[in-house]
Amino acid sequence: MHVNPARRTVLLALLLACGLVLGNGPTLAQVDPLPSWQDGAVRASITDFIARVTTPGGADFVPPAERIAAFDNDGTLWVEQPVYFQVAFAFDEVRRLAPQHPEWKTTQPFQAVLDGDMAALAAAGQKGLLEIVAATHAGMTTEEFSKTVTDWLATARHPRFNRPYTDIVYRPMQELLAYLRANGFKTFIVSGGGVEFMRPWTEQVYGIPPEQVVGSSIIAKLESRDGRPVLMKQPQIEFIDDGPGKPVGINRFIGRRPIFAFGNSDGDLQMLQWTVAGSGARFAGIVHHTDDVREYAYDRQSKIGKLDKAWDEATQHGWTVVDMKQDWKTVFPDMPVKEAKP
Amino acid sequence: MHVNPARRTVLLALLLACGLVLGNGPTLAQVDPLPSWQDGAVRASITDFIARVTTPGGADFVPPAERIAAFDNDGTLWVEQPVYFQVAFAFDEVRRLAPQHPEWKTTQPFQAVLDGDMAALAAAGQKGLLEIVAATHAGMTTEEFSKTVTDWLATARHPRFNRPYTDIVYRPMQELLAYLRANGFKTFIVSGGGVEFMRPWTEQVYGIPPEQVVGSSIIAKLESRDGRPVLMKQPQIEFIDDGPGKPVGINRFIGRRPIFAFGNSDGDLQMLQWTVAGSGARFAGIVHHTDDVREYAYDRQSKIGKLDKAWDEATQHGWTVVDMKQDWKTVFPDMPVKEAKP
Repeated sequence: MHVNPARRTVLLALLLACGLVLGNGPTLAQVDPLPSWQDGAVRASITDFIARVTTPGGADFVPPAERIAAFDNDGTLWVEQPVYFQVAFAFDEVRRLAPQHPEWKTTQPFQAVLDGDMAALAAAGQKGLLEIVAATHAGMTTEEFSKTVTDWLATARHPRFNRPYTDIVYRPMQELLAYLRANGFKTFIVSGGGVEFMRPWTEQVYGIPPEQVVGSSIIAKLESRDGRPVLMKQPQIEFIDDGPGKPVGINRFIGRRPIFAFGNSDGDLQMLQWTVAGSGARFAGIVHHTDDVREYAYDRQSKIGKLDKAWDEATQHGWTVVDMKQDWKTVFPDMPVKEAKP
Repeated sequence: MHVNPARRTVLLALLLACGLVLGNGPTLAQVDPLPSWQDGAVRASITDFIARVTTPGGADFVPPAERIAAFDNDGTLWVEQPVYFQVAFAFDEVRRLAPQHPEWKTTQPFQAVLDGDMAALAAAGQKGLLEIVAATHAGMTTEEFSKTVTDWLATARHPRFNRPYTDIVYRPMQELLAYLRANGFKTFIVSGGGVEFMRPWTEQVYGIPPEQVVGSSIIAKLESRDGRPVLMKQPQIEFIDDGPGKPVGINRFIGRRPIFAFGNSDGDLQMLQWTVAGSGARFAGIVHHTDDVREYAYDRQSKIGKLDKAWDEATQHGWTVVDMKQDWKTVFPDMPVKEAKP
């Protein structure tokens, strides 16, 4: 019998989920599924929840079809400092495209990007940002945009970590995603970021396929090019998947209420509230950025990823709040692991 | 070991996909996956395609993650005559709600529905239809609407077949959906019908979960009711997933191009063109309604499910066209099977 590798992975995941044991080695169930998480209340809140909803006959058992998990992306699955990576992409694109647009040298908001003049950029406001989106995300086909993103990721480096952006994703969250899937969950991204900015790489980096990515979008229009249908991206916002938009996006794209959700900022508050407002066992989690040595430390006063109301709500309702410094042994893949203190 | 039934089904499907054999009985691979399909060119075009894209090492092999199949619903998976079932639902809802709206007796378009006056209804046009949608699909939460659909399906009967609407789905297409999934495909509905009208029942009837249903929609808005978040359905069209909207919907919700698509009318033309315009092996199929004894016969002149341009395109490009009368041994579940002529 030939079993192709992808199918073998699925089969193994299923056998693991069924609690089956391989003949030659330790039982799969004995392998720690969350090696980057410190022992403690946070880790236990996750493993206890998953045990409860997957125990057949238990009071909190949830059928696999209903095991929907939703994750914010920026600041929850990957870094969002010093600027959202999609903003870094847009600015890099302005610089890349500048030779074809000599007028940008003297036209705002492009001049501000080319000069690195953040004050002028801030002055250009929302309107300026939309012009940058229009210049870097529209006027091309969906396939062309996807290639632009892939090309950028292949060469761009994060200014502080000097690594590709897709390398500075949170290893503990990658483990959590895999752990949920091994327990019959379907994992979704529900992000304020652009859906077409995420889809080219989420499957490889998080194991989340394009059809399980929910995000913000601009209008696409069907056109014919050389007799072949193409979808042209228009300079027009279609949907903002942030704040109150997240439950709307969840309903629109997933059509079921998650039983498990993770975010890191006030933009995730409504998603977390929507998740816990359903009946039965529910899990709401927040990543609190407390580690300025290994990553960043920010919360109530931050312009990016402000965590204020959602933190209060978490405290009030006993949601899980991850203290990055305390709860994560390691932050990124291929970084030294900080062992638990004895 | 305890394996819950849903997981057992998934496991069996996987084992089947891997070509494994059960110990006590015939090999699963020997069971005909398409018993309602007559032998012939149409059936062979389907089985040959699936064999080609799933044969490891073959020239047309497609990795499981890319095996996306998209199906229209009305007229492709279930009946769409004498009116779209969602229209029958809306009219039944007008009748059910009429006691709370005494003014409807003398107000169009509601009066036309209550009097069964199709001429007056036609005169009310698009505007009239939108008013009926607003009265029957909006002004309630998404959960309330879902319950309304479920309640209606439990009691409503098709005027000709006198069966629940969810019983007059096409058995050969149910088999095809299961066959595709057993071969590693992810099956999606891409329908002009309302997404929230379909999601409450597609999993049970077609094995297609809510998150794999793409359809038309009206706006939903997040509100608070007694301190609990709810999504209120607004009387405002959000998206029409028909004609050129289908590739847009596929891109928006799935984010990958299907390699296999099935429709039955000109509203599916752009979806089929979009599907075959990708690289590698592609399958486009059309259900041609040719059987007025067991179902209905209609095509170029029909007001509902008009099949004209898409039929020409199918002929020109050698797409598969199912002749319902010839190619299907049986049409509905629990109907007598018409055996092939000797």
